[in-house]
Amino acid sequence: MDGTTASPAPDWHVERWFNADTPPTLQALRGKVVALHAFQMLCPGCVASGLPQAQRIARAFDPKHLAVIGLHTVFEHHEVMPPEALAVFIREYRLTFPIGVDRPGTPGPIPQTMAAYAMQGTPSLILIDRHGRLRKQAFGTEDDLRVGADIAFLLTEPEPSHDP
Amino acid sequence: MDGTTASPAPDWHVERWFNADTPPTLQALRGKVVALHAFQMLCPGCVASGLPQAQRIARAFDPKHLAVIGLHTVFEHHEVMPPEALAVFIREYRLTFPIGVDRPGTPGPIPQTMAAYAMQGTPSLILIDRHGRLRKQAFGTEDDLRVGADIAFLLTEPEPSHDP
Amino acid sequence: MDGTTASPAPDWHVERWFNADTPPTLQALRGKVVALHAFQMLCPGCVASGLPQAQRIARAFDPKHLAVIGLHTVFEHHEVMPPEALAVFIREYRLTFPIGVDRPGTPGPIPQTMAAYAMQGTPSLILIDRHGRLRKQAFGTEDDLRVGADIAFLLTEPEPSHDP
Amino acid sequence: MDGTTASPAPDWHVERWFNADTPPTLQALRGKVVALHAFQMLCPGCVASGLPQAQRIARAFDPKHLAVIGLHTVFEHHEVMPPEALAVFIREYRLTFPIGVDRPGTPGPIPQTMAAYAMQGTPSLILIDRHGRLRKQAFGTEDDLRVGADIAFLLTEPEPSHDP
Repeated sequence: MDGTTASPAPDWHVERWFNADTPPTLQALRGKVVALHAFQMLCPGCVASGLPQAQRIARAFDPKHLAVIGLHTVFEHHEVMPPEALAVFIREYRLTFPIGVDRPGTPGPIPQTMAAYAMQGTPSLILIDRHGRLRKQAFGTEDDLRVGADIAFLLTEPEPSHDP
Repeated sequence: MDGTTASPAPDWHVERWFNADTPPTLQALRGKVVALHAFQMLCPGCVASGLPQAQRIARAFDPKHLAVIGLHTVFEHHEVMPPEALAVFIREYRLTFPIGVDRPGTPGPIPQTMAAYAMQGTPSLILIDRHGRLRKQAFGTEDDLRVGADIAFLLTEPEPSHDP
Repeated sequence: MDGTTASPAPDWHVERWFNADTPPTLQALRGKVVALHAFQMLCPGCVASGLPQAQRIARAFDPKHLAVIGLHTVFEHHEVMPPEALAVFIREYRLTFPIGVDRPGTPGPIPQTMAAYAMQGTPSLILIDRHGRLRKQAFGTEDDLRVGADIAFLLTEPEPSHDP
Repeated sequence: MDGTTASPAPDWHVERWFNADTPPTLQALRGKVVALHAFQMLCPGCVASGLPQAQRIARAFDPKHLAVIGLHTVFEHHEVMPPEALAVFIREYRLTFPIGVDRPGTPGPIPQTMAAYAMQGTPSLILIDRHGRLRKQAFGTEDDLRVGADIAFLLTEPEPSHDP
């Protein structure tokens, strides 16, 4: 979580957004802490643990300072998890935060953002600080106390100055 | 649950079976109590409550006397829940009991078995006695004590005699 | 659970009853199935699992046919679990079924009913049939499907005839 | 949670400590963030929610920076929750953080520390910053994300300088 040596978070390669009027790019979110939740709609651990935690995060923190973003990182069974299926899933599970569809990899099965972050699988939780730097990346589900604390640590860091 | 006035359970209209070498028809299951669990793979209540209960039922009772059968009764968003998607869902959620795909309705959205039983939605739990009679049908999730007792009541009823 | 070889359930040695106008003796309960839940108020497994299950049983079955009875079987730390403490515990946890205080052992630490049933510890669940016979005794917590079924099996057995 | 206007946390009036070789006074804890969990051993909400959360807090944070302290604030049914009963409770529930017995009130039923903090009941969670100031006090149970964040906010504040 040390910020002094953190690298910029890789850009997101999203082919389509749900729950977003304007695509929430990393650049547009500069100044906020970002909790990026990578999932697949047919991944049991994502449905049982990861996504409910993402929803709790969205409720617990002020959206002026923290943005929760979902990312559908399909790396297997692509043919049965197209964006049209994800749209139904989002509606049925009443997910309200912005969710992007990770752009398919070429030629491999790993989608582009998932590859750029070298994620190990789903669910993965990624925290990005107000300066757009990658500060935490965890595969699997961590407990709420730990995640709440990690988000708070980033929230207490000063906002970037708005120089040109 | 009174058996004296119970009607025969309607036949199942299944276009494809998973987890079954031989299609488990109602006729073939005569002599066993049957717990039929109707679900849709993108129905949150089915994933969170109904299917886990079906798996607990399958573990708690002797398969010589009780058969757990799943039925994928897609009545909305058909285009994103084809049998190919269900196949992945079954594998990811490690469901091991036989699961049939309810045959699509013509022309309406309600599949044929769902219509024949006049189910109200998913999840639905249906209990069929050793004589093939419909003894219980419940929409939503009931608690395990009640379901365990209802199954046991049917298990204590005598097996049909094997007359010609 | 076989009834043909079952022995009569040992009598209860209770020094004081809570939630009961008339002491519910085994004799008085003849004709009903009895679920006897043995616990200690400072036993974590009893508080977290056993007692909530006993309350669910009391809600799930018709009290005309099934009686839920609690038994406070203190076999350690007697000095801090007197009946006065149990009275507060019962009120705070809103337990509504009859609860008896097992009579202290002489001279050992094991109370008399607990000894008569040779219970291994708490929580223990004991099922007694309509004829007053001991049909099941389990140390620890069993899942609700199994317990619901076991109770139902006993409920389907015929009531004793009321001969003089 | 604003620290600039926070008052010093009232002193603790403890008649006896468990799980502590040396009484952990507020003065001795200066420099650490303190999570003080007030409970009664026969309070169902404390047993089901508050104390498990206190244990999770103790596991999630480095004890060099965060101290979890329990406080047994008996304000009703004093006669059945003496320190001897608490000792058994602590052992049975395997609580490992220091737990103090709040000194009885004179003449009222409210113990002295509970009165000094004007707690509304049990469970109550109190957060004290590195300077010994009262920063948060909540009656009932809050979710882990919120509590984890509140603790983290206090952990990021600078330690007091060690002037004479």
